[in-house]
Amino acid sequence: MNTLGNTPTDGDLVAWDRDHHLHPWAGTEGFGSAEYMRVNTADGIYLWDAAGKRYIDGPGGMWCTQIGYGRQEMADTISQQVMKMPYASPWSFTTEPAAVLARMIAERTPGDLNTVHFTTGGSTAVDTALRTSLFMNKRLGRPEKRIVIGREKGYHGSTFLAATVTGKERFETSFEKAQDLVRFLPDVNPYHRPEAMSVDAWCDAKVADLENLIADVGADRIAAFIAEPILCSGGVIVPPPGYHKRTLEICRANDILYISDEVVTGFGRLGHWFASEEVFGIVPDIITCAKGLTSGYLPLGACIISDKIMKRIAEAPGDDVFYNGYTYSGHPVSCAAAIKNIEIMEREDILGHVQRVTPHFQDRLHQIKEKFPIVGDVRGDGLLGCIECRPGLNVESYEAHVKFGQKLDDACEEMGLLLRPFGNMAVFSPPLIISPSQMDEMFDIMEAGMAQVSKDYDA
Amino acid sequence: MNTLGNTPTDGDLVAWDRDHHLHPWAGTEGFGSAEYMRVNTADGIYLWDAAGKRYIDGPGGMWCTQIGYGRQEMADTISQQVMKMPYASPWSFTTEPAAVLARMIAERTPGDLNTVHFTTGGSTAVDTALRTSLFMNKRLGRPEKRIVIGREKGYHGSTFLAATVTGKERFETSFEKAQDLVRFLPDVNPYHRPEAMSVDAWCDAKVADLENLIADVGADRIAAFIAEPILCSGGVIVPPPGYHKRTLEICRANDILYISDEVVTGFGRLGHWFASEEVFGIVPDIITCAKGLTSGYLPLGACIISDKIMKRIAEAPGDDVFYNGYTYSGHPVSCAAAIKNIEIMEREDILGHVQRVTPHFQDRLHQIKEKFPIVGDVRGDGLLGCIECRPGLNVESYEAHVKFGQKLDDACEEMGLLLRPFGNMAVFSPPLIISPSQMDEMFDIMEAGMAQVSKDYDA
Repeated sequence: MNTLGNTPTDGDLVAWDRDHHLHPWAGTEGFGSAEYMRVNTADGIYLWDAAGKRYIDGPGGMWCTQIGYGRQEMADTISQQVMKMPYASPWSFTTEPAAVLARMIAERTPGDLNTVHFTTGGSTAVDTALRTSLFMNKRLGRPEKRIVIGREKGYHGSTFLAATVTGKERFETSFEKAQDLVRFLPDVNPYHRPEAMSVDAWCDAKVADLENLIADVGADRIAAFIAEPILCSGGVIVPPPGYHKRTLEICRANDILYISDEVVTGFGRLGHWFASEEVFGIVPDIITCAKGLTSGYLPLGACIISDKIMKRIAEAPGDDVFYNGYTYSGHPVSCAAAIKNIEIMEREDILGHVQRVTPHFQDRLHQIKEKFPIVGDVRGDGLLGCIECRPGLNVESYEAHVKFGQKLDDACEEMGLLLRPFGNMAVFSPPLIISPSQMDEMFDIMEAGMAQVSKDYDA
Repeated sequence: MNTLGNTPTDGDLVAWDRDHHLHPWAGTEGFGSAEYMRVNTADGIYLWDAAGKRYIDGPGGMWCTQIGYGRQEMADTISQQVMKMPYASPWSFTTEPAAVLARMIAERTPGDLNTVHFTTGGSTAVDTALRTSLFMNKRLGRPEKRIVIGREKGYHGSTFLAATVTGKERFETSFEKAQDLVRFLPDVNPYHRPEAMSVDAWCDAKVADLENLIADVGADRIAAFIAEPILCSGGVIVPPPGYHKRTLEICRANDILYISDEVVTGFGRLGHWFASEEVFGIVPDIITCAKGLTSGYLPLGACIISDKIMKRIAEAPGDDVFYNGYTYSGHPVSCAAAIKNIEIMEREDILGHVQRVTPHFQDRLHQIKEKFPIVGDVRGDGLLGCIECRPGLNVESYEAHVKFGQKLDDACEEMGLLLRPFGNMAVFSPPLIISPSQMDEMFDIMEAGMAQVSKDYDA
């Protein structure tokens, strides 16, 4: 049977996807039998499934669809670049979109982060950042300075190296990691601090965790600290105030590179191009980004390196080659899409919009905690939100407790809102163009879903 | 200064690229000062630089632009998919392009390679293939079976793990690798066999290399063997006849997974969708592909896994999760581009065309060896070619000898043909749509370039 020239039915798609498409994080018990919802069309903040039912895209694709769907000028720009120059090898050539975008990114980064190495997404940006850190130390004649500090509940991607520094507990799996290259700091979530402890004291403890780990391992063995400004996939964990600055200072004092993984927080999610400096007051050594860079319209990522690091690599004794890069590094069509995405964000003042609507978004999120006793914590910043079910509820089983996210997602899906369930949490990060009334529509559904799910729990 | 809204001059592009864009394999001594040729437009098999000069695209982008540039229907398909549905998370959803493409790929792979995991390019396809091999063994309760066998001069990409199994000698650099995960087999190039040795005896020796390495390391410690059917970036090295089948049989006998890295050879380069079975008679356990999958129009890669491997992973004791995948896995726009690319290749019978023009291509390539005494070897298959300068020439220095590739590329560039220089070699792999007369134009320039370069060498 040949698929060409036929218009597949929804049944064909179900069968072909089930039989031939191995999705990320597929359960081994479901190999060859899983059925995924078909998303057929999209416009603005909405998606439509195969049956024509409309959903608000709560997760914003995968934390990425900043400017929303259905942008004709994105289609036009992409199509024009495809016709003009769809591909040129970045080994030998440059193209207008790659050179212009490198400049535009450098204009928007903090401090001296002026050098852009393009990648194919967030995982390869992180892989590059880590390889670059170790490369610098080998060039500097200290190859033993090679351990990377990650954090529990941190997520940094899916290459072998990016997965190695990912500290989400559910990543304890049969997938192999480079254990000798990584050490983890414990949970930084203020919600998990001891009952009697202040947030300030929690911050002191979390900073001490880093100091203690460095003392334990030895600064001369540690290459880098990698940290998301907000631990998004881990459940939108916002570290305590002051944590970012103090950990950066400790890294600087120990010549440990600070890699700020802004794959989620970059490009407007918190109302700024990058959150590191403008939200958290730090200028890291390396920033990684992807997702919002193109609003998910095409694959692209970037590893952005400070002048200081570039200089140390260049001025170390002996010549070497930056042996990192991909066939699709700086892909002209992806770069053209990113440029247009940034233009749209500027023209429509999407950063200003996010800043203006954030208080309402966060207010409605916090109302959920007040209204529903089964909620243990709500948290977020910008257009990032998380609802976490509180422990100790009199539910039939632990199993039911950790399924809170799925239950809420199911209830909301029924009413036309998609969320992203994570165990006993549900997270959301809608397209940044969401209007205040659409936001109310989203939270109204969420509250209706909460009311329904609450019945299953005896709070 | 803001880049938005201005039309940059070529001088702007040079400056922005120099100041902000770190290219793959940039030399450390050139950080912040390198100038790359600007490729502005492209059509068919031709590229145009900033000055409007036309070049035949000898390298075919980066071994990838199979259907050539300027395809209006690619632009239209891509633009339509952007408007219809530019992104949906592969964690939660599927889309028509992803499901259809998975099916179309499975229809074209050999044997039982029916499961497709989408990636963002070749490096992430290889990273996935290797992670999958180690995952299977851990699931099977034999975590110590984790070493991967690579080959000298093999190239498999640029993530930490893909670079680890890459055996090109120039990758001896300050970049860190996972040394404990890899062992290498020596050079398989028949051109480098001892003078008195037959090609058959060379094949015996190369097969023995694999057997000896397995005996040395122990089959119970080896997870996989990764091999390009032709070692392309290493200099279009075609292993001796029979080598592929015999090495596959040895892997099977030792329960070592055979990963065929078809990032270059896949999608028509040798006149078939995949070269493993149709050219070399083997059905591997995993095939990786990228590049030709979209003809380079958009970033996409795939790791294709056999039913047998999927079954062993699924049926091992205990449930687990396939913790691998990327935000841009199965990107709907990239998948739509790949589907259209395959449609075009079928409609225009590009595989048949490659089969028909290969003899002329290889004939003209071999004439170069006959005509120019400085040539030590020419080799290739399908529309892949390499010219290697012979050693022992009376040139001013070793330096001049290894610069043969660059000298030939410079001479040809002057006359409107781009090649890819590799030390004392130059390689080329033009768009597959190249016509016999365009092929003559290409080889005529190459011969003129060879005549010019020959003057520098006293053969």
